[in-house]
Amino acid sequence: MKIIKGGVTAAKGFEAASTAAGIKYKDRTDMALIYSKKPCKTAGTFTANVVKAAPVKWDRNVVESGVKSQAVIVNSGIANACTGEEGYGYCKETAEAAAKALGIDAEGVLVGSTGVIGMQMPIEKLKNGIVKLAEGKSKDIESGTLAAKAIMTTDTYEKEIAVTIEVGDRTVTIGGMAKGSGMIHPNMCTMLSFITTDAAISKKALQAALSEDVNDTYNMISVDGDTSTNDTVLLLANGMAKNEKIKYDTEDYKKFAEALHVVNEYLAKKIAGDGEGATALFEVQVMGASTKEQAKIIAKSIVCSNLTKTAIAGHDANWGRILCAMGYSGAEFDPEKVDLFFESKAGKIQICENGTAVAYSEEKATEILSQPEVKAVADIKEGSEKATAWGCDLTHGYIDINADYRS
Amino acid sequence: MKIIKGGVTAAKGFEAASTAAGIKYKDRTDMALIYSKKPCKTAGTFTANVVKAAPVKWDRNVVESGVKSQAVIVNSGIANACTGEEGYGYCKETAEAAAKALGIDAEGVLVGSTGVIGMQMPIEKLKNGIVKLAEGKSKDIESGTLAAKAIMTTDTYEKEIAVTIEVGDRTVTIGGMAKGSGMIHPNMCTMLSFITTDAAISKKALQAALSEDVNDTYNMISVDGDTSTNDTVLLLANGMAKNEKIKYDTEDYKKFAEALHVVNEYLAKKIAGDGEGATALFEVQVMGASTKEQAKIIAKSIVCSNLTKTAIAGHDANWGRILCAMGYSGAEFDPEKVDLFFESKAGKIQICENGTAVAYSEEKATEILSQPEVKAVADIKEGSEKATAWGCDLTHGYIDINADYRS
Repeated sequence: MKIIKGGVTAAKGFEAASTAAGIKYKDRTDMALIYSKKPCKTAGTFTANVVKAAPVKWDRNVVESGVKSQAVIVNSGIANACTGEEGYGYCKETAEAAAKALGIDAEGVLVGSTGVIGMQMPIEKLKNGIVKLAEGKSKDIESGTLAAKAIMTTDTYEKEIAVTIEVGDRTVTIGGMAKGSGMIHPNMCTMLSFITTDAAISKKALQAALSEDVNDTYNMISVDGDTSTNDTVLLLANGMAKNEKIKYDTEDYKKFAEALHVVNEYLAKKIAGDGEGATALFEVQVMGASTKEQAKIIAKSIVCSNLTKTAIAGHDANWGRILCAMGYSGAEFDPEKVDLFFESKAGKIQICENGTAVAYSEEKATEILSQPEVKAVADIKEGSEKATAWGCDLTHGYIDINADYRS
Repeated sequence: MKIIKGGVTAAKGFEAASTAAGIKYKDRTDMALIYSKKPCKTAGTFTANVVKAAPVKWDRNVVESGVKSQAVIVNSGIANACTGEEGYGYCKETAEAAAKALGIDAEGVLVGSTGVIGMQMPIEKLKNGIVKLAEGKSKDIESGTLAAKAIMTTDTYEKEIAVTIEVGDRTVTIGGMAKGSGMIHPNMCTMLSFITTDAAISKKALQAALSEDVNDTYNMISVDGDTSTNDTVLLLANGMAKNEKIKYDTEDYKKFAEALHVVNEYLAKKIAGDGEGATALFEVQVMGASTKEQAKIIAKSIVCSNLTKTAIAGHDANWGRILCAMGYSGAEFDPEKVDLFFESKAGKIQICENGTAVAYSEEKATEILSQPEVKAVADIKEGSEKATAWGCDLTHGYIDINADYRS
């Protein structure tokens, strides 16, 4: 497996475009198109929130119907959530406008929205944007990057990655882009993530690879504990690499799934590290667990604790908060067996042994916690399972952004 | 039922004291004593956190053993959590020192601690403090208030209340004090709350009244979602009102339970409203639920949402975040039936009907949300059950306090 330059346009046959449709933001792009020359088998995972945005309902119908998709229209600024039948109607109008502009079937158009909840779409602006997107689409690497920028809300940088694997004598490419920032505590998958691949692969294998992996990637990140109404991951495969078709549970499937995992984990970590107001990516590894589930529950509880996240913001090795968060996670373990470590580029330090403090240098701990990527490792010494979760620190920036997000 | 002046010294036979032992803070009191002239039947509820502080373990043993208690020694500054056997040993030493100073049995001394986790107690300072507490104890109302001040950490004001009820021809008094502020998301009960009563009551009735009520009071508040290692509610009854003994499930029991509820709800709301950095008490009522449990789950999810709490800080009627938090609560309901209202001293306004926005004045909504006590009411129109939860807004103050709490 090789990491290469680019994102959603890296795989053969995929094009992208972006435009400033003036939906809510001024002076920036706010719409993106992903287009495939050939129709794509499509896998998707969606929010577990009972309140589902209109595009989530639309895309789930497309994915479950089994029709091939050929385009994704994404907008930022307005989430099209809590908008009732009117909002769902706008998804249909969006798909129809895109179908007309691109000369494809409307039933194969996926839509994605992110932004304010409860506001209706300015559909005419959207339609004008779609015409521009269709005109401007390109297979350039650059156009993928610009699309990744257009879907951002409070994100501070675009998130994209592409990798290649060899399947038989063919090179298969997987590329993806994602946006996150706030209301990030995915349950099924995160805010918006779009993955494209030219792999020839069965629909079953495609969906399985995605569904299995989201539990270890997007579902293991949290910015603020708020599971969004719009969480969507879409994976489009157009088969243009012309490899022998990848089937479920084969060696090639494993290779594909591993490469997809690299893409998903990369994007998930970028979302966590670029959480609203974040100054640090906070990685938590729980090891020595009896089951993976136990390790996951504890790791997520730590990464979601406001007190722990605020301590990370202050570069303060306040380890008691971590033990506290482990304790209320809902998982059973023996607190008097827990070893705790902090780690970053500046070094590694043991903070706690068998549940109580060891002598450590606060100065050194603060130095370790002052890096842009910091890690806590908790060993509960029960077994050999482990899990990792990713989050960020909780800062004044988060308050600034969210105390008046709508205006 | 009548609300009267005072707190833990309001009931007959109870005395209190406070002192500055220099445990961690400078220039303020940090130890308190509650003393009863006669041994007390004692009820308690404790944190559900797997990581339990030493005083929680000590007090649970006392309550479960059924011995009568006669004193509570509380300190602020250090929580005596994650301190292993050494920490538990300090509870024993504290009880023995208090027993000696007060001339009572050590097995009837309860202890409570709040503050930093993971630090060992300066036991000599504690012992010196206990001597001063024993010398200074008094039945004055003022001494109860000073005790309520001494147990504060980041609380900005003391929390106390007292009520009286008539049982037969006798007046029974219930008084209490509590502290909260951070790491407040009680599961069984909140940080530290001490209730005293002169009621003559059976041990079974005493524990039942407390256990039943914490689920509707302390367990319905949240400051930051972090369930503490030290959550403790203790209820001491010395029988000195000389009323006919209150037995479980009688008319007198109901009267006692109602009065206890007023005390608990008052203290719980004060803890929520005085959350770290809070500028507003945020009350959430969910009505029209099929079951009380469903209403509770949804109400707690809203009150715990960082995004909703930050919107309250910004006086922003960002109702989509409330619907979102309802949706990920884990409770089933139909989002397209939800009506939502904001309410405060400045008025009441409907924001959303059947899951989508109604035309409302943003200006009026902001005016309503700018009060020190604001309320959101969600009607899910399924049945007639309801529940209320209490929290606070999430502000820069929370970050300031917690980014470097230990120093």
